[in-house]
Parts: sequence; structure tokens; C-alpha cells
Amino acid sequence: MRISSFSIHPVAVADPPIRSSYGLHSPYALRTILILNTDDGITGIAEAHGGDGSIAALNAIQPMVLGMDPFQLHALWSNWGKPDTSGDRSQTWMVPGENPRDARTRAFAAVEAACLDIIGKAVGKPVCDLLGGRARDAAPFSAYLFYKHAGGGGEGADAREDEYGECLSPETMVRQCRQMIEKYGYKEIKLKGGVLEPEIEIETIRALRREFGPGYPLRIDPNCAWSVETSVHVGRSLREELSGGGYLEDPTASMEGMAEVRKRLLAEGIDTPLASNVAVTGLDDVVPAWRTDAVQVVLSDPHYWGGIRNVQRLSDLCDALGVGVSMHSNNHLGVSMMIMAHACCVSPGMHFACDTHYPWQSEQDEVIEGGRVKFVEGAVVIPDKPGLGIELDMDQVGRLEERYNKLTYRKRDDAAEMRKHVDPAWQRILPRW
Amino acid sequence: MRISSFSIHPVAVADPPIRSSYGLHSPYALRTILILNTDDGITGIAEAHGGDGSIAALNAIQPMVLGMDPFQLHALWSNWGKPDTSGDRSQTWMVPGENPRDARTRAFAAVEAACLDIIGKAVGKPVCDLLGGRARDAAPFSAYLFYKHAGGGGEGADAREDEYGECLSPETMVRQCRQMIEKYGYKEIKLKGGVLEPEIEIETIRALRREFGPGYPLRIDPNCAWSVETSVHVGRSLREELSGGGYLEDPTASMEGMAEVRKRLLAEGIDTPLASNVAVTGLDDVVPAWRTDAVQVVLSDPHYWGGIRNVQRLSDLCDALGVGVSMHSNNHLGVSMMIMAHACCVSPGMHFACDTHYPWQSEQDEVIEGGRVKFVEGAVVIPDKPGLGIELDMDQVGRLEERYNKLTYRKRDDAAEMRKHVDPAWQRILPRW
Repeated sequence: MRISSFSIHPVAVADPPIRSSYGLHSPYALRTILILNTDDGITGIAEAHGGDGSIAALNAIQPMVLGMDPFQLHALWSNWGKPDTSGDRSQTWMVPGENPRDARTRAFAAVEAACLDIIGKAVGKPVCDLLGGRARDAAPFSAYLFYKHAGGGGEGADAREDEYGECLSPETMVRQCRQMIEKYGYKEIKLKGGVLEPEIEIETIRALRREFGPGYPLRIDPNCAWSVETSVHVGRSLREELSGGGYLEDPTASMEGMAEVRKRLLAEGIDTPLASNVAVTGLDDVVPAWRTDAVQVVLSDPHYWGGIRNVQRLSDLCDALGVGVSMHSNNHLGVSMMIMAHACCVSPGMHFACDTHYPWQSEQDEVIEGGRVKFVEGAVVIPDKPGLGIELDMDQVGRLEERYNKLTYRKRDDAAEMRKHVDPAWQRILPRW
Repeated sequence: MRISSFSIHPVAVADPPIRSSYGLHSPYALRTILILNTDDGITGIAEAHGGDGSIAALNAIQPMVLGMDPFQLHALWSNWGKPDTSGDRSQTWMVPGENPRDARTRAFAAVEAACLDIIGKAVGKPVCDLLGGRARDAAPFSAYLFYKHAGGGGEGADAREDEYGECLSPETMVRQCRQMIEKYGYKEIKLKGGVLEPEIEIETIRALRREFGPGYPLRIDPNCAWSVETSVHVGRSLREELSGGGYLEDPTASMEGMAEVRKRLLAEGIDTPLASNVAVTGLDDVVPAWRTDAVQVVLSDPHYWGGIRNVQRLSDLCDALGVGVSMHSNNHLGVSMMIMAHACCVSPGMHFACDTHYPWQSEQDEVIEGGRVKFVEGAVVIPDKPGLGIELDMDQVGRLEERYNKLTYRKRDDAAEMRKHVDPAWQRILPRW
């Protein structure tokens, strides 16, 4: 069995005006669908970050993939997929999916997912059963709350209704969370912070705790928007609210900054775990982050960590180190949804519900057959189907690709979007508070 | 696909009178052959340690394996296979394969190997290609030299000729090594020490270096026979000889002892790596061994570490920690030979040639079809066949099982054998020197 065709489909997905410390999401998120075929007629699919950088890396990997045995992934990883460790690979300044130092790693991840889909179909087994057997049958996700402006994603004829409306206060955030939990059944809650004054974000977390109670662990992630001082202040203020399965994610920039926050919180007897997907972006970062106690929960990602197997490797490594594992998300469609679900189910150490932006996309933009992936009590159940368990709706892929081709931008730039829609003078400043 | 039958065949394998700090090998090594069949007619095989302890653990796992989907190994590992971490699991006093604290882990390992053999046959792929793709196509092994008495293995009609004769001096050890290298093509050399006076063993290593030169990395393993003082003395004396890809393996007992040897050698500017399969016997030991710098090369084993996937996990963990990986061996037949070869080939971090006792067994006692596994320039090439790539010769299994049934002993006891044949008052004393 050899890979006989390799095709990529850039797609644009309507995305509401949600905020983070990076800025504002544009009306369309960019993604890339990868389709591999084998000489014996099996199709494997995957989803990757979008835009020119991702497409260039996928084009570059294509000659190595054509003719390849889909089982021989290690050689591709070893010769090409490993991240560039020569410089800063953190996501402090570059959003996930835009860092050239892991562009090859992300392209490898897409090829790995499509190859595992192929192998699963050849063998008649779900992907998570190919990797040593599943650790769980369903992948739990968290309610991923965002401060946001009114109005949905998309533009013109593509404009989407937004069921959540404007959420720029604790009260509206509680409403957003209630809607999301009612619809999807999530059992853990994540607030994307770093957008409003820290006191308002503290109050938002408190309002969520009052509304949902301690049965819903809480996490807040300002993407490095805070100084060490402010991070310690927030950690101290939310000592109770972030305990019991919650965490404080990337409050401040750099491994050193994180280690300092941890040290100062511990000195006050506060052992809220610090999580990171900014300072820690690959397997080579984990031991240093653990040694300095900068990170107690590592956020994996089957895209930029280099595939499902690397998430499993991370889980094993963290298990040996006594470090927690969770999962990061970018905007994504149903293919990534299933990649993430399988990655979670093969990772025994994944004891936190994973992040997902899935609620921010809509049925109209789904590219998988049969419509959106369903959640059961906040979790994605692995279907009893081979491979990733999904097929592409090529009409939908075509529609979203056509839309992509009409767009004028080819990369994610949340700061530019802020300047366009919110504040013409906006700049990303770290720490902002 | 479900496991529909589970059968075990205890076998006795002729074994020459080789020595270690544990004592003397008895005329027969005990092993166990495991055969699993699936409801769709696929057979998977494995080989495990032998004797009552191993058989009891295999009998205990049997009810969990019957009816199992061979892909669902994680659940079996998680519910049953993990080693007992409640007490001393070191191999200081108990030879590998006799420690009750990893008996379940060893039984799991056998089931995993047989399930991977089944999966490989179902999929039409060698085992090492099922686990993310091979890191190499051939597994390099080392010439494993032993001080030994004259006379081969087996008794009575089973007695085997011994091509190596008595080797209790540096000169005869050089001869043994020359024979082994000529026959198998090994490129690295391991001397089992802890048998003669340290000065003789030092001289043996020096004689090997003189004969074979620095192109053949050297390692010596006295299985904890030495005090910290003696270990440092040997490390100092063999500073040159153990450099360039060699190591000093388990010179002294306990993690603390190893750390002390390391500290004292480093203080003298000697950075000969210390290797261990005695102090470090499972994934949970690795981080502590690394933290205290007690071990710089971990010896994996696809049997007592809990399978091929755990050797791969160990390789990944060691890669993250910057620790070396090698592989331990017990007496074994061709099934274990292939399990070890596949484990090596899926472990990118295995940069040392693996140990094998295979030269100490003979064609007459092989249980695989077509005779003994071949070495090409000291390495076992993964055959282009599905699964482990071998089949059992059931007539041979029957003969070796019949022989086992006639034996009066049901466990490995090298000290008893010493008292019987060499010195009626012999006791294992640590440190002996």
C-alpha cells in the first residue's frame, strides 16, 4: 500500500468576532483539508492550520509523501517533521499555526492523521485502537468561553447568525456559558482572558463559579497578557475558584515568568497549577518546563505538536514526570474535531477536558458528511467506524474553498483585525496589565 | 476479531555453565511459549520467562485475554499489567524473571507481543511497522561474553557440545569473543563481570581492547558485585577502555550507590556512563534515576518492562531526558529474539547494541520454524513478513516441553547451582569486592 495522491483544499470558515490578547478573530478562520489516496483505493483525510504558511509546508512535504507506505511515519518525522529547535518556538508573539519553526511539524501532523485514517480503514479499526488501544471511549471537552463583540462570523451572503451576542461583562459571559453547557453538556469551563481589565476577568470567573458551582472546574487563559505581579494577584484572588481541577493558563510570558509566578504563588501556599501552550510547544520543552516548575499542566495539540502519536508521547512523558496534560484548540472543523478526540482517547494522562473552538463554528460550514460532530455530555464519543470515523462532504469542501479563494488575506492576523474594527491604534502589548 | 484460545508451553533450553554475580546457570534455562488464537483463525506467539512464577502469572491473565480484542491492549495494561510500585522492584537480589512485583507485567508483555503478532498478520505488516514505523531495519546486538566453566548445557542425552570451552582468564575470554564475533559479526562487546577478582576482570577488558581495538565499544556488568570504592577503582582503571560508546553497567547496588559512583568518577573527570537494569526496572524508575544522575544508560527489556511498546515509551522518555537506552537480555529462544529485534527497531533512542544470550543456545533447541534467527554483521534484520516474522515448530516445542516436565526445578536459582557444582558454601555476597 502506497500513497498515490496528495491534495490540499484551503477553506475559509465563518468565525465570530471573538477576542483574545492577540486581538480579534477575523470573519473567517483559515483551515486546510488534506486528502491522501492509496494505490489500493483507500482515502485518508486530515485538517491543518490554514493560509499561505501551512499550504507552503504541505506543498513541501508532498514529494516525500507520494509513494510512501503510510505505516512508515517515523522516517518522515525523523527526516522532516521534527520542530526547529534553533530559536524561539514559543507562541508568545505568534499565534499557533503561524510560527515558521513548527510549520513542517504541522504539515507532518496532517500527513500522520491522514495516514492513520488510511491504516484504520485498511484494518477496520478506529484510529485510537491502532495506537495501543484506547484509554477512554469518549473525549471530554470544556466550554470555551470568549469575550466577544456582537454579530456572528462570515460576511455578506455568508454572514452567520450568532447565538451568543455581545459578551463583554461577567453577566453576559455567564449567559454564554449557560447556553454552551445546555447545548453541549460540557463539565469544565475555560475562559479566554487577557481582554478586559483583570478585575473584570476575576469577577467573570467568580460569577461563573457562583452560577455553576465547584462541580465545574474553571480555567482562565489570558495568553501572557499579565505581568508576573498581576498574574500573582489573579492567582491569589482566584485561589478557590481555580482549585479542584482548574488551572491558570499562560498568565505571563516566558518560561522564566511562569516559573516566577509559580514560585510566588507557592510561597503564599497557593498551588493552583499553571498550564501552558505558549511557553511549551513541543516535546523538547517539557523537561525544562518541569525542571523549573514553570508548568504543571502541558497543553498538547495534535496539530502543532506533530500528530496524534506525539500527543500520546506527551501524555507518557508527563505521566513519568508527574505533570498534567490538557489540550489546546484553534478554530477548526469536524476533521480536526475527530483528530483531537482520537488523540485524547489514546492519551491516558489527559485528565483535563480538552479545549475546542467547535461551538464557534456552525453546521453551515461543516465539511464532514452527515453534519457536525455530536457531543454527548460534553464529550465526543469515538464512533464504531474505521479510521477517524468520518468522511468529507466534497460539495461543502468546494464551497468553503471557493470562499477562501475570494478572501484577500492568507494568514491569521488578529491585531490587524483589532485595528480595523475596534481601535485603529491597537497594538499587542505584553504585559498589558 | 477476538482472542479465542490461550495456551502456554513451558520449555527447558540447554544452557552452558556460565557465571555471573548471581552464581551459575543451571543445565537448562526455563522459558515459556505463549500461543494465542483468534476467532478468525490467526495465531500469535510470544516467549516469556519460565518456571512456576511466570506460569502462574500467565494463568492469572488468561481469563482477561480470552475474548479480548487484541487491539485493546491499553485496558489490560492499565487494569492489570502495570508493575507493583509498593516495594523494592530492583533486581539486586532477584534475577530478572523471578521478581513477583513484575510478574503481572511480564505476563502482560507476553500477551502484548502475541497480540502484536496477530495484528501484524491481520494487517500484513511486520510488528515494528505497526508502532509508528521503524526507526531502523535491523537491530544491532553485542557479543555477550561470560566467564564460564568447561562443558556445554543440557544433561544426559540432551547434553550439548560447547564451542567456547572453559573461559576463566583474560586470554580465554579473548578467544571466546573472537569466536563469537567471527560467527555473528557483532560490533560491540559486553563482558558479564562480578565473577573473578576485579583486577582480573579489568585485565580482561584491557585484553579485549588490545585485541579488538577502539572500534569495538566495551561494556562490563558485574551485577552489583562491587562496593562504591571498587566501582570507582574499576571506572578509573578502565577510563579509556569504556569510553567511545561503552559503559559501566550496574557496578554497585542501589540507586544511591550508583549515584555515588557517578559523582566520584565525575569528580575525577571521568564521564564513563553508568548503565543499569538492576536499579531501574520500569518506567517509574527512570526520572528518579536521572534526577540523581545514578544512571546514564537505561537497559530496557521487552519482557519485564511490559512489552515492546514500553521499550518504545522508554526510548521516548530517555530521549526527552537526554538519557541513553540499551537492552537487557535473559537466556531466550528465537521468539524472544524477534521480540527484542522489533522492540529495538521501533525505539529511535536505542543507540547501543542490545544484549542477547542467543549465542549460548543452540540450533537443536530452537523452537521456530526454519531454524535459528540469523545475524548479519551482528544485527537481526527485520524480515519482510507480517507480525514477528516467525512461526513455531510445534514438534520442537513439544520436545522442549517434555524435557521441562522431567526437570525437578521450577525456578532459576543460580546460587543453588553454584553450591552444587562449584562451592558447597557459596553465598551471594554484595558487595563481594
